Amino acid sequence: MGINEFAALVKAASISLAAMSADRKNEALARIAGALADRRDEIVKANREDLVRSESENLAEPLLKRLKFDEAKIEEAVEGIHSLIKLEDPVGKTLFSMEMDDGLELYRTTCPIGVIGVIFESRPDALVQISTLCLKSGNGVLLKGGSEARETNRVLADVVIKATREAGVPANWIKLLETRAEVGEMLKMDEFIDLIIPRGSNEFVRYIMDNSRIPVMGHAEGICHCYVDEDFDMDMAVKIVVDSKTQYVAVCNATETLLVHERAASGFLPALKKALDEKRVEIVGCPKTREIIPAGPAGEEDWRAEYLDYKLSVKVVGSLDEAIGHINRYGSGHTDSIITTSRDKASRFMSLVDSGNVFWNCSTRFSDGFRYGLGAEVGISTGKIHARGPVGLEGLVIYKYKLIGNGHTVAEYANREKTFKHRKMDKPCPL
Amino acid sequence: MGINEFAALVKAASISLAAMSADRKNEALARIAGALADRRDEIVKANREDLVRSESENLAEPLLKRLKFDEAKIEEAVEGIHSLIKLEDPVGKTLFSMEMDDGLELYRTTCPIGVIGVIFESRPDALVQISTLCLKSGNGVLLKGGSEARETNRVLADVVIKATREAGVPANWIKLLETRAEVGEMLKMDEFIDLIIPRGSNEFVRYIMDNSRIPVMGHAEGICHCYVDEDFDMDMAVKIVVDSKTQYVAVCNATETLLVHERAASGFLPALKKALDEKRVEIVGCPKTREIIPAGPAGEEDWRAEYLDYKLSVKVVGSLDEAIGHINRYGSGHTDSIITTSRDKASRFMSLVDSGNVFWNCSTRFSDGFRYGLGAEVGISTGKIHARGPVGLEGLVIYKYKLIGNGHTVAEYANREKTFKHRKMDKPCPL
Repeated sequence: MGINEFAALVKAASISLAAMSADRKNEALARIAGALADRRDEIVKANREDLVRSESENLAEPLLKRLKFDEAKIEEAVEGIHSLIKLEDPVGKTLFSMEMDDGLELYRTTCPIGVIGVIFESRPDALVQISTLCLKSGNGVLLKGGSEARETNRVLADVVIKATREAGVPANWIKLLETRAEVGEMLKMDEFIDLIIPRGSNEFVRYIMDNSRIPVMGHAEGICHCYVDEDFDMDMAVKIVVDSKTQYVAVCNATETLLVHERAASGFLPALKKALDEKRVEIVGCPKTREIIPAGPAGEEDWRAEYLDYKLSVKVVGSLDEAIGHINRYGSGHTDSIITTSRDKASRFMSLVDSGNVFWNCSTRFSDGFRYGLGAEVGISTGKIHARGPVGLEGLVIYKYKLIGNGHTVAEYANREKTFKHRKMDKPCPL
Repeated sequence: MGINEFAALVKAASISLAAMSADRKNEALARIAGALADRRDEIVKANREDLVRSESENLAEPLLKRLKFDEAKIEEAVEGIHSLIKLEDPVGKTLFSMEMDDGLELYRTTCPIGVIGVIFESRPDALVQISTLCLKSGNGVLLKGGSEARETNRVLADVVIKATREAGVPANWIKLLETRAEVGEMLKMDEFIDLIIPRGSNEFVRYIMDNSRIPVMGHAEGICHCYVDEDFDMDMAVKIVVDSKTQYVAVCNATETLLVHERAASGFLPALKKALDEKRVEIVGCPKTREIIPAGPAGEEDWRAEYLDYKLSVKVVGSLDEAIGHINRYGSGHTDSIITTSRDKASRFMSLVDSGNVFWNCSTRFSDGFRYGLGAEVGISTGKIHARGPVGLEGLVIYKYKLIGNGHTVAEYANREKTFKHRKMDKPCPL
């Protein structure tokens, strides 16, 4: 079967999945969780095969780490599914209702997007996580995993397919593309795929974004900033910058560049340096920074760098607006924080910084769906269409308009025999 | 100045436009309306030049018709701006608020998307309409008009630029690309343009959609359906199908294909034929249709055709699900209506038809932002991401997360010294 016929089957199944009850979907989720636990040994065995083969093929260390799917990871996946079951069904919510005229009622109600293309590198946990999120939100799934994880992915896809079939979910709602199918082919299937969610390294995500006309939800980079204003509290500023940089360096919401107002720099930078030295953070800075504290030189490439490491670039700026300009130019639209005692400056920063998450007096590391209390996280989006910042289940639904009449035609309104009432209602859609 | 420098200026101006007050934006809108009226003669004169030149260059009749921008059109544009002024500012609304912990408050607030690329063929009214919608929603605009309308576009852009400058809107928030700049260049500027809105013929919109990685909001085609079920009211069905097909044939929400249940066909089709004959509608049909009423043969191409004319294709189907399958296969995801007395069948149709607008017992012609009571209409979207169906001002905004703390760091939560409260609030963002 060709990849297009595969995709057409998923598209067809996604239509009936869209109308499936919340109970049925939750039962299917519970069965997936059960089957993951039951087939634990088989999953771990398949994963070991992948690890051994990939190691012998000299797969890079970070990819090997992501590839690992052991009992602890299975346990985590099962827990994730149980919390997903508890979330409200995102489908069928009435967002808006309007009585257009007597007996003519308009409803805007949420519905699944359709078919989600999930492309992931290593990380078999992404397979389970994204496919269960898609099921809960009523979307069909076309999965494409990397060849390094092929044995694990086959077992996991089999678990999901069998468990959902037993629960009465339409066959074909999810398909794992065999590894010989090229990612490139999938990126062209805009007839069947409505949205692509990539999971993997920055280069991987960037490649997907640059090579598809299908909308992509995700982020390639997290170049996050802290800006310490001239009006600032010393202890708070040190504490926030240290947390933003060092609490966990290998993640997208860790701060990579610190901007400091020139009137704050001579007081703040030495105190910060002392605290960062304890965490063994390497500092590179602009010439003004290097006049105040010892640091390597920072070049243009440092302002665009996502170190994901114990390294920080520092720039002294002449004004709040210079800081905002720097962030909008070099940042990745992810998360940026201002540390200031001035409410007005915080307000200006939060209005003018064009990022999905703008913070005042707190660490950039808070930028996360679970910390936000959004429940399950589909991912973090740095796009500016549809969904932005940490994206929960609501990022996997769109809406349709339902209009219920009783023989209404437009001619009477065009002739002015009738006129619209346009009375807002607050009524759930009865269908 | 190159097209990229042009675009960079708009991007920079869009940042401060994003923070502009509703009053300032409304004052700028009022000045545009005033200037359009004041410079009426100049606009009409420029438009006549375009019309004369384009006619001598043998521009097609429908394009010439769209190109015309006379006093009546100016009046309409001015009225449109006055109703736009009355609409609520879509920017700065708090969509969601959450107390994450004591003194740590999260807000999701609406903000402009950024820079909108507007590409239009003929239709100088699109220039005024879309640019004023973008201004109200705080977005920068890069405009690219067709060479056929160049004189009109220059005057109109000058009106908008001068009027908004007088009102204190940042210079460069809007730029008209000179006609020598290629559309192709604009489609590649994903660094500066966040969303493209095309206005023109189906072929034109399709070309834009097929040739850009930037998200496109619009619809290429409206292949709308009426389905008459076996349980139906004869008078209502005839009335709705006649209205859907003939009330105005040249528009995207006119019905192009009628589907009829086989148990309804022999009673319904002769009655419908009689009514459509009065409107001189040509009918083409499937073999079963042609056994019941005189009609030309309909082929595969007819199910995909947007006639925009007094022509209807008719197919007899064996079941509701066959009708749904036909619509999902051949339709354009625009608007589809079921005529039935059965609530259950209506519900199934509205759940399973994968279109932005699904109707029960009313004409497809209702699918329109003004009829829906949404106020100003940005356009109709057949996409499934961001906005769908008739799109009002809310389609030109996205949101950002604002997090306000008081020295909060993630370390304490990771160490379990503190735990999140995640208490939903109902509080507008104070910044």
